[in-house]
Amino acid sequence: MNNKKMENLFAPQSIAIVGASNKKGKIGTVLVNNITKLGYQGKVYFVNPSYKMIGLKKCYQALTEIPKEVELAILAIPAKFVCETIEQASGKVKNFIIISAGFSETGTAGKKMEEKIEKLAREKGLHILGPNCLGFIAPPVKLNASFATGLPSAGNIAFVSQSGALAVALMDKAKKEHLAFSKIISVGNKMQISESELIEYLGNDEQTKVIGLYLEGIKDGQKFLKVASQVSLKKPIVILKAGKTAKTQVAIASHTGALAGSDEIMDVAFEKAGVIRANDLDEFLNLLKLLSNYAAPKSSTCAVITNAGGAGVLATDAFKDKQITLAEISAIAKKKLRKILPSESSVENPIDLLGDAQEDRYQAALELLHQEKIENVFCLLTPQGQTRVAKIATTIVAQAQKRGLDIVPVFIGGEKIVGALDIFIKNKLVNFATPEAAIGALEKYRIWQQFRENNSKVSVLKIDSQRKSLSQEIIKKAITEKRKALSFADGASVMELYGIAAIAHSDVTAENIQSLTIGFPLALKVDSDTILHKTDQGGLRLGIKNEEELKKSFSEMQTAFPGEKIIAQAQVDKFAEIILGIKKDPIFGPVIVYGLGGIYTEIFKLVNFLLAPMSLKEIETQVLKSKIGFLFKGARGQKACDAKEFAKILLALMNFAQENPQVAEFDINPLFIYNDKQRACAVDIKIIF
Amino acid sequence: MNNKKMENLFAPQSIAIVGASNKKGKIGTVLVNNITKLGYQGKVYFVNPSYKMIGLKKCYQALTEIPKEVELAILAIPAKFVCETIEQASGKVKNFIIISAGFSETGTAGKKMEEKIEKLAREKGLHILGPNCLGFIAPPVKLNASFATGLPSAGNIAFVSQSGALAVALMDKAKKEHLAFSKIISVGNKMQISESELIEYLGNDEQTKVIGLYLEGIKDGQKFLKVASQVSLKKPIVILKAGKTAKTQVAIASHTGALAGSDEIMDVAFEKAGVIRANDLDEFLNLLKLLSNYAAPKSSTCAVITNAGGAGVLATDAFKDKQITLAEISAIAKKKLRKILPSESSVENPIDLLGDAQEDRYQAALELLHQEKIENVFCLLTPQGQTRVAKIATTIVAQAQKRGLDIVPVFIGGEKIVGALDIFIKNKLVNFATPEAAIGALEKYRIWQQFRENNSKVSVLKIDSQRKSLSQEIIKKAITEKRKALSFADGASVMELYGIAAIAHSDVTAENIQSLTIGFPLALKVDSDTILHKTDQGGLRLGIKNEEELKKSFSEMQTAFPGEKIIAQAQVDKFAEIILGIKKDPIFGPVIVYGLGGIYTEIFKLVNFLLAPMSLKEIETQVLKSKIGFLFKGARGQKACDAKEFAKILLALMNFAQENPQVAEFDINPLFIYNDKQRACAVDIKIIF
Repeated sequence: MNNKKMENLFAPQSIAIVGASNKKGKIGTVLVNNITKLGYQGKVYFVNPSYKMIGLKKCYQALTEIPKEVELAILAIPAKFVCETIEQASGKVKNFIIISAGFSETGTAGKKMEEKIEKLAREKGLHILGPNCLGFIAPPVKLNASFATGLPSAGNIAFVSQSGALAVALMDKAKKEHLAFSKIISVGNKMQISESELIEYLGNDEQTKVIGLYLEGIKDGQKFLKVASQVSLKKPIVILKAGKTAKTQVAIASHTGALAGSDEIMDVAFEKAGVIRANDLDEFLNLLKLLSNYAAPKSSTCAVITNAGGAGVLATDAFKDKQITLAEISAIAKKKLRKILPSESSVENPIDLLGDAQEDRYQAALELLHQEKIENVFCLLTPQGQTRVAKIATTIVAQAQKRGLDIVPVFIGGEKIVGALDIFIKNKLVNFATPEAAIGALEKYRIWQQFRENNSKVSVLKIDSQRKSLSQEIIKKAITEKRKALSFADGASVMELYGIAAIAHSDVTAENIQSLTIGFPLALKVDSDTILHKTDQGGLRLGIKNEEELKKSFSEMQTAFPGEKIIAQAQVDKFAEIILGIKKDPIFGPVIVYGLGGIYTEIFKLVNFLLAPMSLKEIETQVLKSKIGFLFKGARGQKACDAKEFAKILLALMNFAQENPQVAEFDINPLFIYNDKQRACAVDIKIIF
Repeated sequence: MNNKKMENLFAPQSIAIVGASNKKGKIGTVLVNNITKLGYQGKVYFVNPSYKMIGLKKCYQALTEIPKEVELAILAIPAKFVCETIEQASGKVKNFIIISAGFSETGTAGKKMEEKIEKLAREKGLHILGPNCLGFIAPPVKLNASFATGLPSAGNIAFVSQSGALAVALMDKAKKEHLAFSKIISVGNKMQISESELIEYLGNDEQTKVIGLYLEGIKDGQKFLKVASQVSLKKPIVILKAGKTAKTQVAIASHTGALAGSDEIMDVAFEKAGVIRANDLDEFLNLLKLLSNYAAPKSSTCAVITNAGGAGVLATDAFKDKQITLAEISAIAKKKLRKILPSESSVENPIDLLGDAQEDRYQAALELLHQEKIENVFCLLTPQGQTRVAKIATTIVAQAQKRGLDIVPVFIGGEKIVGALDIFIKNKLVNFATPEAAIGALEKYRIWQQFRENNSKVSVLKIDSQRKSLSQEIIKKAITEKRKALSFADGASVMELYGIAAIAHSDVTAENIQSLTIGFPLALKVDSDTILHKTDQGGLRLGIKNEEELKKSFSEMQTAFPGEKIIAQAQVDKFAEIILGIKKDPIFGPVIVYGLGGIYTEIFKLVNFLLAPMSLKEIETQVLKSKIGFLFKGARGQKACDAKEFAKILLALMNFAQENPQVAEFDINPLFIYNDKQRACAVDIKIIF
């Protein structure tokens, strides 16, 4: 699927409406009106065997009868005719929208029809949006190829929605909020064109500055990660992703049948791909508003100026736990401000211009902040008795235009600020109703900008073919022998290939028990692929102090687990216990999981996730930022563990997952780590296929 | 200050405006217009020595010249004349509003003037609002006794604001949101009438159903707790409390000079008093909207019905981490729903009525939920092509009125839903713009309702006079001896009085070192009020295993700390280490602090706060809910520690703080606790005066 072809779908020179109609209440009628009456300049053809004419225009009996080229066909016909219609026309028409419902969202029969169409599309090189979708709208070319009514303002926001109804509601809301769109696309069942294809396409769409998506599921996690990471370097992607809880997963399943995926892993994926996640509908709209009108913030420091101390205080609160911060105002600047402003003003940041402030004080403060090179200015205003609201708005606009500052107005009020809001809208300034909303949106924009600055190239995991074939040999042998898991010894051998040390260990037999090289104290373990919960069943004995205890324990264990292999392991001190492993995520595939082990594992749930591919440096950064980062930063005066060593282990796990795709479950629990240069070592290793 | 007198202030029969004027731009002019032209029915007098007449009305030279009774005088005159004016009139007028600024907010001189007025008020039994305030507005009696213009709608919300400008902005915003008020009160410097007095007064005000406050500081924490706890049993108090960060504290100080207090302790105080805390301006308005129009939710389960799957999915997400939940719909009800609704509908909760749903489906679903006794129904709607928005709104209103259900509409859109919003407003239903906002507000309302159900009486701490005099004896003796802290032995004796055991210990001297009754291993400690950080300076030796080591350590310690007392302590095992103590909060006084001790103290920061008074039962509940609750709930199959025993220790600390007010700092660190019926014991005790 390439961009040129997607362009034919979303900016067609000619459209055929299959199922065109003039009966009230029919989707075909709405489509006819939307496409012919809103200003679309391309050729339009109607297709419906029940009509000869619709209005003054000829109606064709079939797509194939149209004598001219058709770039896009929109199908609003019963589901059962869809496949046949496409098949017959597939020599002539390459792009389709299937508006019709009744496919995979309805059950097995529908799913089969959908699969048949998808196969057809692959074979014939077709591009199909839907089925079960609203269609799309391209306001810049006045094309409404959907059955939602009206034409939103043309602008630079591309909005992709997995819910047609929500798209309609947001379009209606957007009018009030003065949002303007390059494209609005309803994806429906995402049979062939899903979020990944659209992000890629919109990433290259010159009319689009911001890509906003409402998603319930992600179709192909790996592809999404790849595409979104690349597009995020060019333009911001904002996603309102539903599915935060198990209950939501059920609701989504009954709604679109999509798989919502673990929300925490979704967060990790979004961060990795530089995607801005909106937490709710309000935030989503606020982000689109800001991002479509403003350049990305070049710095993380901000200033607040206000004519109401209380509003300034609320703004200061809104910076709590944020990565953007209130700038320090220099002593010189403060001195200048004191000269300009009345003596009771506050010249700290927030700068309080006092309740009787007019445009002169706003202007003076803005000019001074500009001299001070403090960007990102939030201009707060409450409409007090004497406040000349419109004049102040005009002053802010002039300052913003003259100096290219990023000035975000936060005028708080109702009727009294309506005039000011109009002034802002006309001049592409965006007013926020509360300081919290403005500051929250700017922070996320800034985080995206930092992503873009720091991630100019995407990491790649290299396959080491020798290592791969050696580890595959061990695993395949076990599979051949019908084992379900590797023994500890085999697991340790595989880990060694990946540079991860296992604790000293040795098989124990009646013959060699006298001559073990592992010193006391040691542990005895049943090393079996069927007895995975050794501890519960008495398959693990710790603290064996001498030969006598060793022999006794060994013989008892042989009796309890006849025929099983028994191994001895050194029992050593640790600084901290870590658990780590690989979880197969249904959306993103293998995910590296690591966290604090030992008695606090389940209490503190300090678990972290990583998605491949990552560079060693990126992993190290994440480890230090993670919930167990304290271990690697030397908290409380204790020496720090080696973050780089640990990052190498995590990278090794990524390599292992990539090179050994049969592995279904993988755990090292515990891994002992140290803060005295001792090498980390795996004490238990589970590799299950 | 009693209610009757407050009533004279806020519902006066007669008002004198001191500083009345007719010059444009003067506050005195705004006051004259506000009080005489908006419909206030009481007597009004003007006072200003510069005028004989203002308009057609006589203007008096001084308050004292007015021949009739004056219930309230509003002063809008320069600060320097205020005290004199009040003093002269204090025989005649008992209630004042000081609009004038220039008092404690400006520095020392202003503060002195304010203190003088406060003294006067106390001596003469006056009630004074302000200084440095906007005044107040009482829409039900059409009285605007402030210099904000206009008269908001009369309703049941009392709004108290520590920021006049924010009050004006919110009034303007409120018009748009259709909020209606019983009182709007600007408190200014809170010289005499602060949040506590107003909460008490408004608690008894029949016109007020909800009390909303914007606060930057709390004047008297103890009084606030007492008053708010009582009023919360009658009506909800919603507070937007600024001051979440250290930076905000600075901003507040430069704004009103108020002390913002530790935000975490503020949260504890609000929870204890049943106060609903709004996190930001939007949430504050949403809460006022819901609470002023709806009865408190009687149950914690909710239903969502929607015509858009996507909106239902977002609503489900909004229940994440909430105490209110989506109700299970019974199998019978689902069966009924399936009969009523099209086959593709979802009859799970959220109930998806599908995109073509009209009023009949909404009605059927609402009726069924009523039969099912599921309250708290969120009615979601997106305006799709065919949706009869107004008809559905009318149906929802009828259902809500007929059945007394708590139906909260969430119509998402812009122009297309304007008509529906009008229908809701006229019928006292409140529409929310997003499911998140509606569900968030309802949850907080429900939590308040539960507070009211569970806290019908307020706890009292009893003073035990014998225990008090014994502990005071020990502390006073130490103070007399000019010690700054109690020795461990003295601390242990005091703790014993409060039922807290200390670890076995004994003084060690050259004479008794042979005959110590504490077994090995033991610890040696310097027990001094000047060497508080024993560990750092070598004043603590652990793991002394025999007499020889004991003698050696003792002699070394004597050399290192000549003349200091040395004690031996038993060295015992523990299950967990706890730190606990008393922190003196500048607003709320002594606060009990407890958390996880040992190596994870600073990493996990599992610290909790408690405010006295509390009953043993209340403390136990809090302990189980606290960040270290896992210790008392037997996580991971481990036996639980005794929550009741630990609650008794915390209650003892509350008693100790109350009975020994000289104590400036108090710490037990660590306290060893057990899960095997062993008694908890204090290993180190610091009591500093």
